[in-house]
Amino acid sequence: MGSIWGNAIKLSLFGESHGAGIGVVIDGFPSGVAYDEAFILREMERRAPGRNKQSTQRREADLPLIQSGIYNGKTTGTPLCALIQNTNQRSGDYAALSAQPRPGHADYTGMVRYQGCNDPRGGGHFSGRLTAPLVFAGAMCKLWLKTQGVTVGSHIQSIAQIQDMPFDDVDVCPEQLDALREADYPVNNPRALDAMLAAIEDAREAQDSVGGVIECAATGLPAGLGSPMLDTVEGRLSSLLFGVPAVKGVEFGAGFAFAALRGSHANDAIYQEAGTVKTETNNNGGVNGGITNGMPLVFRVCIKPTPSISSLQQTLNLQTGRVEPLSIHGRHDPCIVTRAAPVVEAACAVALADLLREANGYA
Amino acid sequence: MGSIWGNAIKLSLFGESHGAGIGVVIDGFPSGVAYDEAFILREMERRAPGRNKQSTQRREADLPLIQSGIYNGKTTGTPLCALIQNTNQRSGDYAALSAQPRPGHADYTGMVRYQGCNDPRGGGHFSGRLTAPLVFAGAMCKLWLKTQGVTVGSHIQSIAQIQDMPFDDVDVCPEQLDALREADYPVNNPRALDAMLAAIEDAREAQDSVGGVIECAATGLPAGLGSPMLDTVEGRLSSLLFGVPAVKGVEFGAGFAFAALRGSHANDAIYQEAGTVKTETNNNGGVNGGITNGMPLVFRVCIKPTPSISSLQQTLNLQTGRVEPLSIHGRHDPCIVTRAAPVVEAACAVALADLLREANGYA
Amino acid sequence: MGSIWGNAIKLSLFGESHGAGIGVVIDGFPSGVAYDEAFILREMERRAPGRNKQSTQRREADLPLIQSGIYNGKTTGTPLCALIQNTNQRSGDYAALSAQPRPGHADYTGMVRYQGCNDPRGGGHFSGRLTAPLVFAGAMCKLWLKTQGVTVGSHIQSIAQIQDMPFDDVDVCPEQLDALREADYPVNNPRALDAMLAAIEDAREAQDSVGGVIECAATGLPAGLGSPMLDTVEGRLSSLLFGVPAVKGVEFGAGFAFAALRGSHANDAIYQEAGTVKTETNNNGGVNGGITNGMPLVFRVCIKPTPSISSLQQTLNLQTGRVEPLSIHGRHDPCIVTRAAPVVEAACAVALADLLREANGYA
Amino acid sequence: MGSIWGNAIKLSLFGESHGAGIGVVIDGFPSGVAYDEAFILREMERRAPGRNKQSTQRREADLPLIQSGIYNGKTTGTPLCALIQNTNQRSGDYAALSAQPRPGHADYTGMVRYQGCNDPRGGGHFSGRLTAPLVFAGAMCKLWLKTQGVTVGSHIQSIAQIQDMPFDDVDVCPEQLDALREADYPVNNPRALDAMLAAIEDAREAQDSVGGVIECAATGLPAGLGSPMLDTVEGRLSSLLFGVPAVKGVEFGAGFAFAALRGSHANDAIYQEAGTVKTETNNNGGVNGGITNGMPLVFRVCIKPTPSISSLQQTLNLQTGRVEPLSIHGRHDPCIVTRAAPVVEAACAVALADLLREANGYA
Repeated sequence: MGSIWGNAIKLSLFGESHGAGIGVVIDGFPSGVAYDEAFILREMERRAPGRNKQSTQRREADLPLIQSGIYNGKTTGTPLCALIQNTNQRSGDYAALSAQPRPGHADYTGMVRYQGCNDPRGGGHFSGRLTAPLVFAGAMCKLWLKTQGVTVGSHIQSIAQIQDMPFDDVDVCPEQLDALREADYPVNNPRALDAMLAAIEDAREAQDSVGGVIECAATGLPAGLGSPMLDTVEGRLSSLLFGVPAVKGVEFGAGFAFAALRGSHANDAIYQEAGTVKTETNNNGGVNGGITNGMPLVFRVCIKPTPSISSLQQTLNLQTGRVEPLSIHGRHDPCIVTRAAPVVEAACAVALADLLREANGYA
Repeated sequence: MGSIWGNAIKLSLFGESHGAGIGVVIDGFPSGVAYDEAFILREMERRAPGRNKQSTQRREADLPLIQSGIYNGKTTGTPLCALIQNTNQRSGDYAALSAQPRPGHADYTGMVRYQGCNDPRGGGHFSGRLTAPLVFAGAMCKLWLKTQGVTVGSHIQSIAQIQDMPFDDVDVCPEQLDALREADYPVNNPRALDAMLAAIEDAREAQDSVGGVIECAATGLPAGLGSPMLDTVEGRLSSLLFGVPAVKGVEFGAGFAFAALRGSHANDAIYQEAGTVKTETNNNGGVNGGITNGMPLVFRVCIKPTPSISSLQQTLNLQTGRVEPLSIHGRHDPCIVTRAAPVVEAACAVALADLLREANGYA
Repeated sequence: MGSIWGNAIKLSLFGESHGAGIGVVIDGFPSGVAYDEAFILREMERRAPGRNKQSTQRREADLPLIQSGIYNGKTTGTPLCALIQNTNQRSGDYAALSAQPRPGHADYTGMVRYQGCNDPRGGGHFSGRLTAPLVFAGAMCKLWLKTQGVTVGSHIQSIAQIQDMPFDDVDVCPEQLDALREADYPVNNPRALDAMLAAIEDAREAQDSVGGVIECAATGLPAGLGSPMLDTVEGRLSSLLFGVPAVKGVEFGAGFAFAALRGSHANDAIYQEAGTVKTETNNNGGVNGGITNGMPLVFRVCIKPTPSISSLQQTLNLQTGRVEPLSIHGRHDPCIVTRAAPVVEAACAVALADLLREANGYA
Repeated sequence: MGSIWGNAIKLSLFGESHGAGIGVVIDGFPSGVAYDEAFILREMERRAPGRNKQSTQRREADLPLIQSGIYNGKTTGTPLCALIQNTNQRSGDYAALSAQPRPGHADYTGMVRYQGCNDPRGGGHFSGRLTAPLVFAGAMCKLWLKTQGVTVGSHIQSIAQIQDMPFDDVDVCPEQLDALREADYPVNNPRALDAMLAAIEDAREAQDSVGGVIECAATGLPAGLGSPMLDTVEGRLSSLLFGVPAVKGVEFGAGFAFAALRGSHANDAIYQEAGTVKTETNNNGGVNGGITNGMPLVFRVCIKPTPSISSLQQTLNLQTGRVEPLSIHGRHDPCIVTRAAPVVEAACAVALADLLREANGYA
């Protein structure tokens, strides 16, 4: 139906960009996890707009107000609700927007889906702002995953066509992931970053936008999470990852590059090290038959260029029935890939926490 | 958890490769849909092994025995169970297989997941054979979707590095999809096929295997299916698509190619034709904000090379604790991409039927 | 698991009695339903404490603050979140309470379930206060059900052993249900009420409490809602009704009285009136084989006496390991049956809305 | 929707009375549980018709044919499918039956629900025969529960108005429950049985039927299963119990008798014995706030009199539109309470296994 996800840990997201507030209810979260507010706020800040020149200059407080589920500094195990108030809305002329749905956006599909009753202001429930409560949920899950030895992190694999150095998929370690999380821009190769930023600036000057790829990894996962066929690790992760606005592709391990490999090179040979079963390569991205194998989980998502661009677009006006020019005003990121990284990590952390909590009951 | 999927229409898959039988229960299927056995059997045949030189020479009856849910030639609306008996098992030496899990397979992860109790014969519940009941379910869903004006089809986009001509994503039509379904090998460009078959033969001779990409499309979908954020069309489809063994990547519309596009080229300009809202391009693959927009649904999945190869592999023997040579005997496809096409279509059809049936209650 | 419920319409309840706030997220609610705030507040008021002598003298604002899902006075169809702030907490000495769990309460089970991390103040997430967001959700569902011709109402069937006149189960009508909703105490026989109130006063003077039975009905339901076996109308309703604190029994139609009937009297003979199929009697309470038959839905729930009583109880002190006297101070209702009526109606309305919305997709 | 149930352990029931076969898929069942076929068959036999004079003289093999999920005598952890073939159908004149739906049955509601496409022969999917796979699933769950120290059993609390001695709700023990399971008729007071059997014979001679009450208990449950509000132990159990055909009421502990109790008598005082927290009485039936408290789980369900009676009934003929006499021929039980006992236990065992498996992941 829409805004509830999960099995052992369930999320319920709510809110519209210009309504009173947005937030999330997390059901089934383990009890007794220490609430590290500083960590949560840092994660929120990573996603927040206005941090740097590349992202929009709006400033939103994005302060999660805990309504329930935290007591004496620890999670209670009962539903945890965090509310983020909307304080900085400028609603503007949304009647116009309803008349001329923005290309690449959900204006038209939202109107059809909800029979014209959805809140169109700022994208309403479709707004990228809704990723803020997802990041909150992800941050909470990271706190619990940490206690289970699991670390989630990501880097910008590419922006426009500029590539960062990919993760070493057999050796990626928690320290590397933690360091990336602290960086202004999470990249493995600082020189790639300069080119990326230049590409973003080019796009901004052209009143245009660029997309990219985020690579995400998780270390410390035990073997045995997930299930074959209808509830695979890949399937469960991707069901949430595609909920991150602008994600249009998800691949695990070698992903689409598998198409050009032969089996003899694609197969990950198995060996043992200090009693732990490992693989020489990690083309399967840590998952075989839908189940984790104990190697690092590695996947990539594609982020399409922001559809909100200032340059003129020729597109349908529903009221006149004619194609007319549309110029989208307002504050828009020429590239949301940098801000999307913590959102992708959040989706990953939530899905892994759900899988891990469920698997804890298997034995 | 694991082998149940869906919301309005739910699948429950069961079976092991060498057990008594495999099958599927479909719950929530619409009542009154005519059971077209000939169509069902053709779909089953498309997936079945042994059809041609490229696929394994085993012959399996794969005849779905209807246990319930069909009465007087129509679906009853109550659970539909189809059972496929296993008749041609040669169990062989699976003790050895438990000792030395095959690289790229689920032998090791299945063992961990089920504490060593899973049936290892022929891959057990992880066997590609389990896609037979999925194809049956997909064929049933295609029958219902047809009554709703929706057609699902696919072609082999690539094998090894040889590319077929992609779908024209704004103009793909039911007739094209129906014709592909009837073809021995579903390709848009017959010349690409020869090269593909040659590449498969090369791999076979090298005792190796190759992967590829399948492109799938659906026409006739109404706008308004799916939901934002946590239950998107992309998310729901991919949650099932990744259950198709060997699928390691899923992308919608332009997919990963979005990373190199600018917004001004990526955005699909909207226009109107004979009262229908359409888009000039279809980079979003028929989905905006997680919701169908009425354009053809277009997506691709990557199929990794079959991990079962005859050439020698150096891999861990769990009993000796040492890396030792492994040679996988038996009948193996050097390329499962051709047989995977109907399976990918089936996953797509099931997911779309689920979305459509759910959406029928929205208005 | 725990605080999410539903299929086509999903609730996510959150909050603790003395936390920042309590509330509910409703996912899948139909779009375009007019938000009748006056109606909502009247329903909230019916459940609120302090309305009369029989209920506790606390006054709580219980004002639902809409965070999302309402726009231009109508539901958007995207998640609807209502938040109720906690303003009147007196937390008192809950350390003591943790030491000596109250008999008949969830103090002990909550402690075990959440490893001692749950918020014990005022019962925390187990507080009857959590029924406020449920009443809100029920009121929203009543608004939609009204547009579908469905009315839900209830009366106090008994308090202590004093019986009200039961519903005429073949003739109960919307007007009767609406009138009961407006009454201070919903009873069919005003004379029974006096005796009930006297029984409550007796209990209060004895520092004790009394229980009772609520009978609930819904009119206007179409035939054909629900499913056989694993998803019956009775099963779905009861799964939510048992979530209303203090409910320990649910029966439909003749319920437990069936045990003393013979089939010839228990069977509801079928006839037709003005084209509508009806039954002469309604011993099955409007449901056959788990599916509505078009007759009024009628069921009863038992409400146990409030476990919070002022009179001394001998019960375990977990710290000393000894049974010791416990006296529960504070503001407690000697009878919660009157306040429970709108909560039972709410659970019913939510379950029926869920069933109806789902069934709208069947045809 | 309809025939899938559960969270950590999911059932998928299928089949019609006169179709090819009926059965169940169990998903999420723990791996490594020894398959005790003799126990399973005994449980099946308890439910089977034709065992004695009181039940119908049909004999059905009811042999569960394992299709998957058992390997080397133990559960694999992957989906377990058991199929029961229908061998003894006499379909008779079901066209007549469609014309004149039987009072108290689901003939009419099934027709509406499935737009007239459901299989009406022998009640189709609504047949009591569908409880056979439920009993199978329950028996499997009992096998696992036994390994966890949990025992489920029941007795006939009443038939017509004749009462058996209820369970001692604080002292009911596994030995007592095991003995009841072995008895031809599970009663605590053998003298009550004679009167019950006489009442059944009276009803048979009058071409009528009688109902009754089954009391069910489970011992050995740990404290801490279940959740408050929306996923209570009572709610989850009842959601399945109401799926047992003819169940129209469910009550836990004192149940409806709570209505006549005062809090001071209703509350279960807590004490400790050999380090275990217990209660002096067990009016709450082992559940507080929706969560088990470690005391025996005790509940009762009401079974309505079999609606299939031979005596003449005046009821609607849908084809003529007139009320006409109906006489139901065939083999019918004048009382199904005795056969319902193992079905109620099965529903209980499945629900408890689901709760327990889920809870194993909490810590």
